[in-house]
Amino acid sequence: MTIKYPNGKTFNDDENFDKRQSSQRSVDFSNRGMTLEAELNKSNQYYLRNNIAVIHKKPTPIQIVSVDYPKRSAARIKEAYFRRASTTDYNGVYRGKYIDFDAKETQNKTSFPLKNFHEHQIEHMRMCLKQDGICFAIIKFVFDQTIFVLKASDLIHFWDLQVSGGRKSISRETIEKLGYKVQYRINPLIPYLEAVDSLME
Amino acid sequence: MTIKYPNGKTFNDDENFDKRQSSQRSVDFSNRGMTLEAELNKSNQYYLRNNIAVIHKKPTPIQIVSVDYPKRSAARIKEAYFRRASTTDYNGVYRGKYIDFDAKETQNKTSFPLKNFHEHQIEHMRMCLKQDGICFAIIKFVFDQTIFVLKASDLIHFWDLQVSGGRKSISRETIEKLGYKVQYRINPLIPYLEAVDSLME
Repeated sequence: MTIKYPNGKTFNDDENFDKRQSSQRSVDFSNRGMTLEAELNKSNQYYLRNNIAVIHKKPTPIQIVSVDYPKRSAARIKEAYFRRASTTDYNGVYRGKYIDFDAKETQNKTSFPLKNFHEHQIEHMRMCLKQDGICFAIIKFVFDQTIFVLKASDLIHFWDLQVSGGRKSISRETIEKLGYKVQYRINPLIPYLEAVDSLME
Repeated sequence: MTIKYPNGKTFNDDENFDKRQSSQRSVDFSNRGMTLEAELNKSNQYYLRNNIAVIHKKPTPIQIVSVDYPKRSAARIKEAYFRRASTTDYNGVYRGKYIDFDAKETQNKTSFPLKNFHEHQIEHMRMCLKQDGICFAIIKFVFDQTIFVLKASDLIHFWDLQVSGGRKSISRETIEKLGYKVQYRINPLIPYLEAVDSLME
């Protein structure tokens, strides 16, 4: 993918942001400092704007306890608590298929700790797979900015081994072997749907 | 659908709740007082428990401004505001297909006011349709507890007419003609996936 120069088409801020950033830094460390969530939101915006896929992060579930309704201004939530989500964070539609995934980053270098996932997220993936959904995890090793798409069925395999006394993490080596490595680009920043194409074949 | 008697299978509270309610009231007014959202959540729980579909309501999006982290207790959100959702409220997977819908109830008797929808929800449906998602609206006329599934393409048709100066509502008559009427049942309370089966044919 090449960087496009102004050609009369309307620029939007996000695209300019990409270009500014990409000219300031080397490719390898391009996204250091940006959270995986922010990177995926940018990527999903790109997919949405270009009619490639409609994928959104779900809002964080909140238990609202008390709300103020001041006159002439917006309702203000005065007391609320975080609730545990009953699903994964991302879902949507791509080429007619239901897409469902969660994204996790780890500071570890040699393995991905399974404790990054909760039981209910794994159960949600199991149920989506039964409905023929396309389910996976996006795993980022922060230290070297490497991203993998790992099929939910592989993740579930290691989860179940752990539950029956197996190791509490998946080695980087295993993830390299089973997963699809996704290289950072300009647009989309994380072209993870290319890995999904492979999953769908 | 017949009511099942205890047969050694574990009862769950939701099912008992249904039975208790249904014996106390006539079928026509069975769900008066329950919001459409609560009814759909119950229906989706049924679909989920029975491996029929995985469909969830998305959490309400909140802009969090201030959070307290007291020692030894849960983080407490002290200030937050409601944000406008950028998608419809419900989505999930059924028979391999991406399902996406919004649910609206009206107190009107002869028509459904289009102002129940926001521009961005209609745009979201347009984009999901482009990706071959199954998109629709669930519309409930509260006065006579009647529920319809209306295809997104029909809804968008009337929305676009409105934008170009047409009427600001869809007549009940039109909804009766174009939509799929869904009859309340015991389990699931609102068997809307039967209408979806027809949409998918």
